[in-house]
Amino acid sequence: MSQNLMKKIMLLFFEYDTPRMVLVRDKKVGFTFRLIQLCVLIYVVGWVFIYERGYQTVDGIVSSVSVKLKGIAFTNVSGMGPQIWDAAGYVFPAQGDNSFVVMTNFIATPDQKLNNCAELPDAAGHCSSDSDCRQGEFTKRGQGVMTGKCINFSNTIKTCEIFSWCPVEIDYIIPKPPLLRAAVNFTLFIKNSIAFPRSHVFRRNLVETITSNTLKSCIYHKTKAPLCPVFRLGYIVNESGQQFDKIAYKGGTVGIRINWDCDLDWPVRFCIPVYTFHALDDAKSNISQGFNFRFAKYYIENGIRKRTLYKVFGIRFDIMITGKGGQFDIIPTMTMIGSGVGIFGVATVICDLLLLHILPKRKYYKKKKFKNAVKKE
Amino acid sequence: MSQNLMKKIMLLFFEYDTPRMVLVRDKKVGFTFRLIQLCVLIYVVGWVFIYERGYQTVDGIVSSVSVKLKGIAFTNVSGMGPQIWDAAGYVFPAQGDNSFVVMTNFIATPDQKLNNCAELPDAAGHCSSDSDCRQGEFTKRGQGVMTGKCINFSNTIKTCEIFSWCPVEIDYIIPKPPLLRAAVNFTLFIKNSIAFPRSHVFRRNLVETITSNTLKSCIYHKTKAPLCPVFRLGYIVNESGQQFDKIAYKGGTVGIRINWDCDLDWPVRFCIPVYTFHALDDAKSNISQGFNFRFAKYYIENGIRKRTLYKVFGIRFDIMITGKGGQFDIIPTMTMIGSGVGIFGVATVICDLLLLHILPKRKYYKKKKFKNAVKKE
Amino acid sequence: MSQNLMKKIMLLFFEYDTPRMVLVRDKKVGFTFRLIQLCVLIYVVGWVFIYERGYQTVDGIVSSVSVKLKGIAFTNVSGMGPQIWDAAGYVFPAQGDNSFVVMTNFIATPDQKLNNCAELPDAAGHCSSDSDCRQGEFTKRGQGVMTGKCINFSNTIKTCEIFSWCPVEIDYIIPKPPLLRAAVNFTLFIKNSIAFPRSHVFRRNLVETITSNTLKSCIYHKTKAPLCPVFRLGYIVNESGQQFDKIAYKGGTVGIRINWDCDLDWPVRFCIPVYTFHALDDAKSNISQGFNFRFAKYYIENGIRKRTLYKVFGIRFDIMITGKGGQFDIIPTMTMIGSGVGIFGVATVICDLLLLHILPKRKYYKKKKFKNAVKKE
Repeated sequence: MSQNLMKKIMLLFFEYDTPRMVLVRDKKVGFTFRLIQLCVLIYVVGWVFIYERGYQTVDGIVSSVSVKLKGIAFTNVSGMGPQIWDAAGYVFPAQGDNSFVVMTNFIATPDQKLNNCAELPDAAGHCSSDSDCRQGEFTKRGQGVMTGKCINFSNTIKTCEIFSWCPVEIDYIIPKPPLLRAAVNFTLFIKNSIAFPRSHVFRRNLVETITSNTLKSCIYHKTKAPLCPVFRLGYIVNESGQQFDKIAYKGGTVGIRINWDCDLDWPVRFCIPVYTFHALDDAKSNISQGFNFRFAKYYIENGIRKRTLYKVFGIRFDIMITGKGGQFDIIPTMTMIGSGVGIFGVATVICDLLLLHILPKRKYYKKKKFKNAVKKE
Repeated sequence: MSQNLMKKIMLLFFEYDTPRMVLVRDKKVGFTFRLIQLCVLIYVVGWVFIYERGYQTVDGIVSSVSVKLKGIAFTNVSGMGPQIWDAAGYVFPAQGDNSFVVMTNFIATPDQKLNNCAELPDAAGHCSSDSDCRQGEFTKRGQGVMTGKCINFSNTIKTCEIFSWCPVEIDYIIPKPPLLRAAVNFTLFIKNSIAFPRSHVFRRNLVETITSNTLKSCIYHKTKAPLCPVFRLGYIVNESGQQFDKIAYKGGTVGIRINWDCDLDWPVRFCIPVYTFHALDDAKSNISQGFNFRFAKYYIENGIRKRTLYKVFGIRFDIMITGKGGQFDIIPTMTMIGSGVGIFGVATVICDLLLLHILPKRKYYKKKKFKNAVKKE
Repeated sequence: MSQNLMKKIMLLFFEYDTPRMVLVRDKKVGFTFRLIQLCVLIYVVGWVFIYERGYQTVDGIVSSVSVKLKGIAFTNVSGMGPQIWDAAGYVFPAQGDNSFVVMTNFIATPDQKLNNCAELPDAAGHCSSDSDCRQGEFTKRGQGVMTGKCINFSNTIKTCEIFSWCPVEIDYIIPKPPLLRAAVNFTLFIKNSIAFPRSHVFRRNLVETITSNTLKSCIYHKTKAPLCPVFRLGYIVNESGQQFDKIAYKGGTVGIRINWDCDLDWPVRFCIPVYTFHALDDAKSNISQGFNFRFAKYYIENGIRKRTLYKVFGIRFDIMITGKGGQFDIIPTMTMIGSGVGIFGVATVICDLLLLHILPKRKYYKKKKFKNAVKKE
């Protein structure tokens, strides 16, 4: 008995069952069948495998960016005197992050100290008597806390008195042309390290063709020097489709995208970055254009705390690293093959439809293909 | 001969072979078969295609964020005098990054200069003689380098003398209520630009329904104004499930997530951001609660380098952009169809099992289905 | 008639058609068939399902990082006097971002004021007469705008006079050993909150085993304390494969990767971070080694704007959060099964090839498998 079972299992193990087929020699059906098969084959091999590299797993990128700016600008603002601006002064933050601001224009309010003074008319509106100014409160656009008095702003206008950093900042007139117009020639050096962790691939944007010498003299150009990591700010802004003078005036935002699209089945030296530049503001929409922020330099003079307030207009650069590293892997390959074989089944489904329901001899084929097995009850 | 071969190839080309089937008219098996097929169909079409949009490739997001804060706070700390705080003073970093801190409370130690003074008792412990103080060393919680002397900290306590910024910071008592409690009404304006690079779609969070006018007056509310990019800090903190007063006191962390889940097969105006707010501290755990850091304002008075040290307690906001842009693509569509056809095969496998091994008439069906082809040796 | 149609549809609904098979009892073919099936089964179940967890959807990570540094360094630079450096002085930015710099060395140029002085010889080269110095221009490596005069730099060398922050910075000699060598013992506390948004899982790197007490005393060690979030800078740098003294001297970059590879089908307490440390500079390449930036402390002395310029050499730490959260999902499961069934079809294809084209009895099998259905015209 047990021996019998063993024998049955052995038989099962060496058994192979293959479907019995009807061989149809019909030119229409045959041609359709082969055509669909060909399409599927071209699609699977040509598109999925070769073009889209479906045999690869895609590894995400981790990256690190640091930047360094070079260049000098000279300004001569009334009330501030002649001044030299170097990277320690016009880059925010100083250490050069993947998102940084280069000051191109500013409104300085020097020698502010904590005191009482008249609010700007457009921040809080005019007042006629002290009762219009609620002590201890402030308006949304105001620069300080109201003291409760209504005082002369000018000979004709009265506004609420505020406790604030006085004199208050007046930012109606933005200097034109921008004070640090020289920023157009500043250079930006980007150091970018990336890794594809799963594939243990590590790369820098200082690729093999960049040597110490080229680094000293090269300037990025999208066709002539596409791998040089030193950029002229003016070039970046132009490539992003914006005008330097316009965004230097009121500030703006530029995206620098470094794309690492690497086929890691090839030697790693072919894995190189591609730089593209994008406007991140919507030029067509005129709401909330520009980029500005305020910062202050605090100091003490004769025992009195003072500050110089800067409303800084600048170009904000956002460096975005994207990329993927494809490498051959058995799983996506098998999944693709599996799907591919599945898609071949579609050919059979369509041709059977043709054969059994559309062709004139469909009844004959039906009889050949099917065998009835009606359960007699 | 060659002509013969050609003919054979031609025959092969116009040949179509389709499996011969047994047609079983059994209600149980038939019903099971159709039921499984229906389930697979509903699953593939309904779930994978329509609900999960399996016919789309998903494009990653690249993004850029800048923020601007508005609001004024008034403090009157003993030793510092009345003071006005504006965005140039309470936002770190000043330029408004995707991760920034709004100061809500602070301990200021003004007029520190480099000098010798007594260490705090809890940093290094007490000492009784100079031999307890090892010159040139410092303790983990100490604020300076020991000079090797043991001096009076107070009338009763002796501690090691250190060379440090003196007087040393005493941070035992955190001001309560928080000094910049007014921060609850500060407003935060978020400008967020995103792109789906592969699909060449570019969007801002200033969507079509946001105009210059709405921007001036609107305040975000999750149901009433879910697209307004101006937020009250108090509202954000509440929505994150935290109490403003509590996290303003010792600092805290709030995540602002902007999610762009876009179906790019639809017009781009339907691609809008969804804002959600999260507590990033674990309220249940009381280890390492709060958020604080120290920074200093350096100045020179009468030729002596001095600084005001601030221990800043603040709310750290982390803006995280997530999202994906789905767009119809032939590859995932075909892969899904391929898998779907494969899954249909499961129906045949299950029904064959039923037919050949479970039904009472299984022997009859087996004979109908299989034809032996025993190799006679 | 309609009743007839109804009956037909009913018949169709309860119909089941299964392919008619040829049962081949051939040891070679049977064995091949079962072997291929076994391989496919092992591959699908063992590799795809169990090892690669193909039944899971993978959720991306969103994260927030804040850091805090502790430690004190003492410097005594000629011209600056003895000085104490604490976190408020050596960390950039002060608030502790996911990318920050710890100053380890610096060249200070104190008491700079806006004035005319001689350019460094290596920035602009020597000059012999005023005509060599073009007024209003500046050289790429220069520190100011030329006034048009050629003056004595030293007794033997003449260079162009510039309007600049004077005296100009001389950065030929980098202090060795690095001034803040004590940074090797600074500690870095990393707070990292992560979320897998789709799975609604929220975690901190302060996992269950980290208590208030362990946090006070623990120091990360890759085997002894792999979950302690407090790191010695020296240990991090060593683990990244670099020498602390070398990168403290000219600056450097270290990547700290926190990897959260979580199987969310298990309890969330098994979801723990893994810290790894990487050199982000290419040690083999000697171009653009190190990391430095300039920043300035501005002050006013006797009504004159002055600044102390620092060329800061430091270690830039980049904290990169990676990770994925896998969770069971029906879609990838079904897709995998679908592909798997498809791959089984490969076995039939290969065995049919063997059976019909290679075996000696191929003609016999061919006759058994195929039935001709030639269309008679």
